[in-house]
Amino acid sequence: MSAPPEKIPQPTIERLSAYLQCVRLMRAQESATASSSEIARRTGINAAQLRKDLSYFGEFGTPGLGYDLRALEAHLSRIMGLDVERDVLLVGAGNLGRALSSYTGFGRRGFRIVAAFDVDEAKVGTAMGPVRVHHLRELAAVNAELGAEVGVVAVPASAAQVAVDALTAVGVRAILNFAPVTLAARPEITVRNVDLTSQMEILSYYLRST
Amino acid sequence: MSAPPEKIPQPTIERLSAYLQCVRLMRAQESATASSSEIARRTGINAAQLRKDLSYFGEFGTPGLGYDLRALEAHLSRIMGLDVERDVLLVGAGNLGRALSSYTGFGRRGFRIVAAFDVDEAKVGTAMGPVRVHHLRELAAVNAELGAEVGVVAVPASAAQVAVDALTAVGVRAILNFAPVTLAARPEITVRNVDLTSQMEILSYYLRST
Repeated sequence: MSAPPEKIPQPTIERLSAYLQCVRLMRAQESATASSSEIARRTGINAAQLRKDLSYFGEFGTPGLGYDLRALEAHLSRIMGLDVERDVLLVGAGNLGRALSSYTGFGRRGFRIVAAFDVDEAKVGTAMGPVRVHHLRELAAVNAELGAEVGVVAVPASAAQVAVDALTAVGVRAILNFAPVTLAARPEITVRNVDLTSQMEILSYYLRST
Repeated sequence: MSAPPEKIPQPTIERLSAYLQCVRLMRAQESATASSSEIARRTGINAAQLRKDLSYFGEFGTPGLGYDLRALEAHLSRIMGLDVERDVLLVGAGNLGRALSSYTGFGRRGFRIVAAFDVDEAKVGTAMGPVRVHHLRELAAVNAELGAEVGVVAVPASAAQVAVDALTAVGVRAILNFAPVTLAARPEITVRNVDLTSQMEILSYYLRST
């Protein structure tokens, strides 16, 4: 794989994630190879776009023979940086935090929640899944040892900016935000907002039109 | 607005949701109008695609003048069927179910959780946010009164198919699934899987490449 160029467009990265999910599903369904048009059909992204997106990362696949799905999964996983384990700091030990700490999907993809934080003294010191809840003011001390670079924000909207500021101050570079609010962060920090409502809105369309 | 044609491609619906989120954000930032290229830049979807997606639903916007964002928000909301309130049945009264029942984003978009269900007798009869937890076997009786057509599945992967089957048997036509598993449903039922891991994977790319 050639080194990625300086700046890959964000929609390309999102599509790579969609291709990867599609490839995993096809492999789970016992497929060994697929054409770009088959992956295109399943993801709703056209085949020319798929080939262009993959071409950012060097040549891949054999024209006319389609993709070997096992190799494509490994290739996409490397591109996405999923070939290393990531330690994750979780801020928020409420219901959502507890749900996320026991969400098995993260571990399967190499994301490991290593510590949790809250400002509620009643929660501090309790266990949450496999980790202990610390007070948010201990974040710097805890992460000096852990060195985690990924954070998850699972606090109410009103507390989310404080959580983001605290995480970025201790070296976190990538944050998954569940609070329904847009957050400010320095340009070198990546914040992704998980908007549970947008999925619900897409459902709504199908209710309307059937 | 003209009636939508028989079958709009699913990626179009997903992009309409992205445009709608962008328009809401721009309005919150006090913008009154925007060109298609401005919306394209912010959503990462090209302007020609944006115009094509909107054209499925009749003419909209004034060439050269851009879009009136207030009118565009109303137009997109109608397209997405967000101009009516939807009652929602929640299956799963664990941590995730509790988090979802207090998630304010749903209510703001007109989705109202009206009843919750679980198979755990210890949870049955308890309150969860504003609703009461019923045993899953009461689903038919409860929904005979409520007539809800939207379901949310927040149960472990091993219990998710049972939940989907139960919901569709009582008239639910659209399901938001949080369990990390692919579910079977009749073709007329829309199931959307919320994959919390895919957002984490996109974050991973940015950690790798910075």
